[in-house]
Formats: sequence, C-alpha cells, structure tokens
Amino acid sequence: MQCLVTGGAGFVGSHLVDLLLDAGHGVSIYDNFSSGRREFLTHHGEKISIIEGDLLDINSVINAMEGIDIVFHLAANPDIRLGTSVTDTDLKQGTVATYNVLEAMRIKGVKKIAFSSSSVVYGEADVMPTPEDYGPLFPISLYGASKLGSEALITSWVGTFELQAWIFRFANIVGARGTHGVIFDFIHKLRADPTRLEVLGNGLQEKSYMEVRDCAAAMIHLVSSTNDPINCYNLGSDDTCSVRRIAEIVVEESGLKEVSIEYTGGDRGWAGDVPKAMLDPTRMNDAGFSTRYNSEGAVRHTAQTLMEEIGIEN
Amino acid sequence: MQCLVTGGAGFVGSHLVDLLLDAGHGVSIYDNFSSGRREFLTHHGEKISIIEGDLLDINSVINAMEGIDIVFHLAANPDIRLGTSVTDTDLKQGTVATYNVLEAMRIKGVKKIAFSSSSVVYGEADVMPTPEDYGPLFPISLYGASKLGSEALITSWVGTFELQAWIFRFANIVGARGTHGVIFDFIHKLRADPTRLEVLGNGLQEKSYMEVRDCAAAMIHLVSSTNDPINCYNLGSDDTCSVRRIAEIVVEESGLKEVSIEYTGGDRGWAGDVPKAMLDPTRMNDAGFSTRYNSEGAVRHTAQTLMEEIGIEN
Repeated sequence: MQCLVTGGAGFVGSHLVDLLLDAGHGVSIYDNFSSGRREFLTHHGEKISIIEGDLLDINSVINAMEGIDIVFHLAANPDIRLGTSVTDTDLKQGTVATYNVLEAMRIKGVKKIAFSSSSVVYGEADVMPTPEDYGPLFPISLYGASKLGSEALITSWVGTFELQAWIFRFANIVGARGTHGVIFDFIHKLRADPTRLEVLGNGLQEKSYMEVRDCAAAMIHLVSSTNDPINCYNLGSDDTCSVRRIAEIVVEESGLKEVSIEYTGGDRGWAGDVPKAMLDPTRMNDAGFSTRYNSEGAVRHTAQTLMEEIGIEN
Repeated sequence: MQCLVTGGAGFVGSHLVDLLLDAGHGVSIYDNFSSGRREFLTHHGEKISIIEGDLLDINSVINAMEGIDIVFHLAANPDIRLGTSVTDTDLKQGTVATYNVLEAMRIKGVKKIAFSSSSVVYGEADVMPTPEDYGPLFPISLYGASKLGSEALITSWVGTFELQAWIFRFANIVGARGTHGVIFDFIHKLRADPTRLEVLGNGLQEKSYMEVRDCAAAMIHLVSSTNDPINCYNLGSDDTCSVRRIAEIVVEESGLKEVSIEYTGGDRGWAGDVPKAMLDPTRMNDAGFSTRYNSEGAVRHTAQTLMEEIGIEN
C-alpha cells in the first residue's frame, strides 16, 4: 500500500518508515522538520518521497494525499512539558493539525488513518494496568488534551464520513534516534556534569516504556491484521519502570563512577505530569503481537543506544 | 458570585441567566448573537451586562473576564447536523473557542468553569443507561468531537493550572425559547404543511430529554454543592423518548387532525446521529437534584410551549 507518514522524519516516524519499506510498501513523508531530521531518512536514498510542509497549511496537506491508501499520522509537538509555558502549541500542532489531515483525507477520498495517541489520554487513571475502555478520560496535560481531541475528531470522521481508523495509545516510546524524553535528558545532564544527575520529582514516577522498533512493528502488525471501523490499542509492554530506576540504569550504562543522583522532590516532574501510568497491553497481545523488550529492557537498550548516538563525554 | 455566561443569549444560556439572577448572583453575558437572541434577555433590563463578542477574538474574551468568579461556558454551534456539510464549525466554535475561554481565564486568574458538554461524547455506547465513567469515548459526530475536545482542554487546565471545573453532559435539552432540535423542526414542518410530518430515519431513535429549566437548575445546584477539582455529571432524566413518540406528541398537541406521519427510513436521522442515547443520572440524583419532568413530560411540555411561541398556523 502507499503510505503517507506525517512526522515521518521524527523519532517514531522514521522507524516506522524503515519497517514499512522493509515490508514492501510505498512511503511518502510529510514533515516540517521542526523536530524531525533528514539524517534519519538519508539511508533510504530515492526510495521515499519527502514533502517538507506544515500540517497547518491545509492546501499542502491536500496535495500530499494524492494516491495515498493510508495515512500514519504521527506528527505532533513532541515536548509534553511545553504546554505548561506555551498553551496553544498542542492545540495547533495536535488537534488542529489532525483536523487538517482528516479534512484533506475527506476531500481526496483517502479512507484509512493510523494515529499515534498516548497513554496520557487516561489522565490519572484509578485502574492499572489501564485498558482501552477505561473511563472517564480526564487528561491533565495540554498534550494529553490534544491527543484526546484528535482521537475524538478521528472517531467523528469514522461516524460521519466512513473513515477507518487505528488509534494507538502509546506508552513512553524510547530508543534509537530519541530526541527528547527522560533518558535523553539524563544523558545530556551527565554530559554537562558527570558528577551529578538531577531528577525532576521524587523519582517514584513510574510508567510503561516501549522500545521504538517494537512500537513501529506493532502498528504495522495491527493495521494489517485488524479491520473494525475503529481499532483502538494500547501499545506498551506489560510492566513499568520508575524514574529512579531509569536514573540508575543510565548511570550504570554511562560507566561514570560516583555520580550523585539528586531528586528535586514532589510526586511529579512538572505540572501536568502523570505520576504513574501502566498500560494494559492485553488487546495488542491477543491480536498476535508481543514486544521484544519489557519496560526496563527498553530503557536499558535505549540508554546504551543513545549513549552511542549522543556520546557521554563532551 | 459574579458569573460570565458565554452563549448567555442562547436557548439554555438565557434560562441559566434567569435562574442565576433569581438566586442573587451577578451576571455578564458574552454572546455573538449568531443564534442567541436579545429578546431572551430584555426582561432583565439593566440587571445584566451584555458583551457582544466572538469567542474567537481572544482579546475580547480576556477583557470579559474582569471581576469574574465563575464562567458558565455554554456557547457553541447549536446545530449538530451542520458538521456533515461544514467540517470546521464545531472545531472553531467548540474546541478553539473553549481554548480561548480557558486561556483568558488563566491570564485573568479566573479559577472556576462550568461547561455544557453533551451525551454525544459517549458515541454509540454499549452500556445504557450510560454512567459518567463509561469508556471508550468515541463520539461519532463532529459536534461530539468538539465537546470531548473541550472537556479534555478543561481537565488539562485543571491538571496544569489549578482550575476547578464542572463538566455537565447534557441529555437533549428541550423547552421554551428552543431554536433548534427535533420538536422545533416538527412544529415548523407542520406549519409548512399541516397534512403531513416527515420524520428523518425510522423514528426508532430514542434519547434522554431534559426540560431546559431543570437543566439550568441542575447546573446551579451542582456548582453550589460539589467541590472536587473535576466534577462531571450527566444531566438528564432517567428514561428516554423515541422520535416516533415525539412525532405523535407534537401532532397531538398541535390539535391538527389526520396528519400523516412519514418516515424516511434508516436507523439514524443523519450521518453522525446516535440512534439511542440513555444517560444514567444517578450521580446527579445522589447529589440532591431531581428533574421535575421525565423525558416524555419534557417533550410534551416543550411541544405545548413552542407551539405557543412559534404558532402552529401560518
């Protein structure tokens, strides 16, 4: 099939592009390169077509839909913490951008969308592991609001315009080419000061992690093997890893000795941070997909990989 | 308390204004008068302040927040069917407008919001009566998407900026001053042709109805008597009424003889119409509020009232 990957030059997007090409699909990429990077794609040479454009430019999005069978809509503001200082980034780059994708699909008759939602739509859930039919959905970050707002637009397009949708609620995705997130931050902090590592919060925040190629493979598996009008799946491993444990693993993998790990205190890293998130991946597993890494394994693999990519020494 | 009512000149908003003034509160109204009407407010004379403005003009919204203790955010596109032909109305007048209200509140330090959400956030729920913690939330209309997107923005503001929120998921609200909806439509159809009444769908669509003054009274009761960071309540009666029964009641109340009721067929009135919606009002009842009318009572009362307002004869 001919795939359009929005955010295809980004962290998850570029891995998805790798696996789609491996599976013999055609791939176009739509990216504004605000956080995506051309070097994540250069190894594909002429095999892919790259459209540099912004999802807020609807005419450009409409043009990108020509000949497309399915859209993997992954583009978004990648920095969940940004919402605490700039309040319209998630609305525009999340909800409004998703509207533009859907409207362009409607105009061009593209009928399938796969969307990267997030475990943050569950807010501070009181059921853990949290299944897909959990309610109420009260996200506490502006990023989470944009993901739930985007999901709602997608299901309304299914109900009104006969779209078919895959909604993937991601755990914390980690791995090679990571450009943000806690492991990435820790490595950069150790580069800046190899004697101490400051951790936001008390370190007891605890979340599900998933390795990025596991995530991309799960998406392709589920799009190929499920066929309801709305197919909603948690993508994650079946356990969690605490921020304290992540700090320990990053320090271990750094090879640095006598690093002092210091906690800023409080039960969350920033306003809008969910202290504990544990996804229930049973539906994904029942659909025939299992991850290679559990949460701690994904974290350790990522620490090793990013340490190589970034370098631990200045 | 000093209240700002967005959409205060509208159908539900104007009844809320009546009851807020009765209870001794100060009231400002923010309305663009696209569907709201000045005559719904003229009986209050100088007791209210009216700001004619659009919620998409954020500077105007910020100015309106001066001295406000609580915002009742009711403004929205009232025509749920519009989303099938114009796809950005609900996004702008729903989700983006709610963002502007929240951002203006943040800037001006207003800490409380009560929001008119809708039973349509539940989509085609497989649990009925549907409780507030039902999931997954897959709205099927663009209007529903805008309501869920707005809810998500509100809960994210609670989580990030310490807002306090009341989210009211309305049944179909009917009553005096109605400007849209099935009873309103039926009366206008009978005015145009007193011999026949065309019903969209097979008439078996079945929903919870709530009389508008019951709805406004419930909002004031719950805002006064509940105090969590997020207070989410279904507002509705504990039963349903079918479209077929509504058609019969409207014809009965019209006094017209030998009206032929004709059905266009199909299980829903339009793409994005939910065939059956039945809200569970237990939480509202447990918080000490009961409706005066059940669904059929609300429909009959409304048929009588609107027939007087509109007139059944040309």
